[in-house]
Amino acid sequence: MRIGFVGLGVMGRPMADNLVAAGHELSVYRGRTDLEAQVCASAKEVAERSEVVILMVPDTPDVEAALFAPGGAAEGLRPGSLVIDMSSISPTATIGFAQLIEKLGCDYLDAPVSGGEVGARDGTLTIMVGGRPDVFERARPIFDVLGKNVTPIGGPGAGQTAKVANQIIVGLTIEAVAEGLLFAERAGADPAVVRQALMGGFASSRVLEVHGERMVNEAFEPGFRLRLHRKDLGLAVQAAAELDLPLPNTAATQQLMNAAIADGDGELDHSALYRTLRREQS
Amino acid sequence: MRIGFVGLGVMGRPMADNLVAAGHELSVYRGRTDLEAQVCASAKEVAERSEVVILMVPDTPDVEAALFAPGGAAEGLRPGSLVIDMSSISPTATIGFAQLIEKLGCDYLDAPVSGGEVGARDGTLTIMVGGRPDVFERARPIFDVLGKNVTPIGGPGAGQTAKVANQIIVGLTIEAVAEGLLFAERAGADPAVVRQALMGGFASSRVLEVHGERMVNEAFEPGFRLRLHRKDLGLAVQAAAELDLPLPNTAATQQLMNAAIADGDGELDHSALYRTLRREQS
Repeated sequence: MRIGFVGLGVMGRPMADNLVAAGHELSVYRGRTDLEAQVCASAKEVAERSEVVILMVPDTPDVEAALFAPGGAAEGLRPGSLVIDMSSISPTATIGFAQLIEKLGCDYLDAPVSGGEVGARDGTLTIMVGGRPDVFERARPIFDVLGKNVTPIGGPGAGQTAKVANQIIVGLTIEAVAEGLLFAERAGADPAVVRQALMGGFASSRVLEVHGERMVNEAFEPGFRLRLHRKDLGLAVQAAAELDLPLPNTAATQQLMNAAIADGDGELDHSALYRTLRREQS
Repeated sequence: MRIGFVGLGVMGRPMADNLVAAGHELSVYRGRTDLEAQVCASAKEVAERSEVVILMVPDTPDVEAALFAPGGAAEGLRPGSLVIDMSSISPTATIGFAQLIEKLGCDYLDAPVSGGEVGARDGTLTIMVGGRPDVFERARPIFDVLGKNVTPIGGPGAGQTAKVANQIIVGLTIEAVAEGLLFAERAGADPAVVRQALMGGFASSRVLEVHGERMVNEAFEPGFRLRLHRKDLGLAVQAAAELDLPLPNTAATQQLMNAAIADGDGELDHSALYRTLRREQS
């Protein structure tokens, strides 16, 4: 298939590699020259050369620019083309982007991922997809190259909604484990022993297992960078205001992430919230 | 063994039943007459008749009264007796109680449990124990009747510390799942589909599995009553002030539990926080 790829960063680059390895013909924007792909001068040129255009960029304004700025993909798309946004961005903005792309006679899916750099390289990403079922089926061969756990969530924006829900739950569970283990430590118990004792019960989670161990060992190399998680909680808090929805612990955790980043910990794993809370002690 | 049992409530009653069934000779205070046990007029009388005195009462002041009020167990304990407090109470108060009991020439363990009424009935409680290792070994045959996952955590108070850490993590994870699933619902996705999609990744937890399902089905019969979880977060917040430790999300979740109880939901399962957050919507 002739696939365009916009955004060859930490995640996008190994994803593009996997598509080339699966035999697809790639056109890329902002690519390094060592990739077997046609390097283009703009997202518009990528769109002109492709049936499917994949976006993997940092944030909502980057998706908007890649699609709709002068020289953006919208200028090069032909009717019948498919845009798949695999970035993690605003669910509400996504609904607007999908409508604008559909007005051009094209299809749109939002398909954010989790699983990080390792998942991108190994083709084992979890992919949460929003959009029409027939369009999902059209994109499935691509998703099968990039990921393992591919779930259609619902209509336009539903993939981004699921991703934000995921980031809320993961972020707040990390904060919960940090508060619990730090309480144990400060009250004089060994947090490693407490963590082990709690693993069999209702406190058990992947976060207690993976991030709890990082806290106990104070080993905070990423993993998933705290700075990026703050962005995702920002999406949640912004959408919550649009929806008149109270997310008190999401908001508080975002504030703690601000403190962590101010302390210079933004490039550490998000489990470094543990030492942020510890540092807040008088 | 001659065992005294003070506090035959929802948890204590089936625990006492299991000790009788295992062949122990029980003296009880505030017992129903259908139990095969010596019913006593005071905790003092229970202590006079027993080598080991188990407490299973609601809160810190109840333990204090059962031990040290006039007619309390301290008046009846003989040197060499063992007090095991299986209630969930303040870790810092526990250290004081242990010291007072040891001054009488007796031993003390704090051994709070998790696993609820079902665990108490089936003898499958998780038991987190604080106290001296040799005293733990002395009590092990009793613990083996009452529970399955029995862990020595550390010195005096460490069992209560682990229990509070557990309640922090469970309570805040429930709140996290509630925020995530409610976000999904209000943003127009099906929370049941989102929950399922998230089960394989870093958001996965026993809480997402069990309490997340209760939220999706709006089925909030307990389980563990929200009112009791508020008490446990109260212990955390109180100890945090004594330790100069910031627990921002524990404090915020305790406030939400206040709102839930004000709404009349205190006797529901703690997963009913979901509808508290939903009700807060304008």
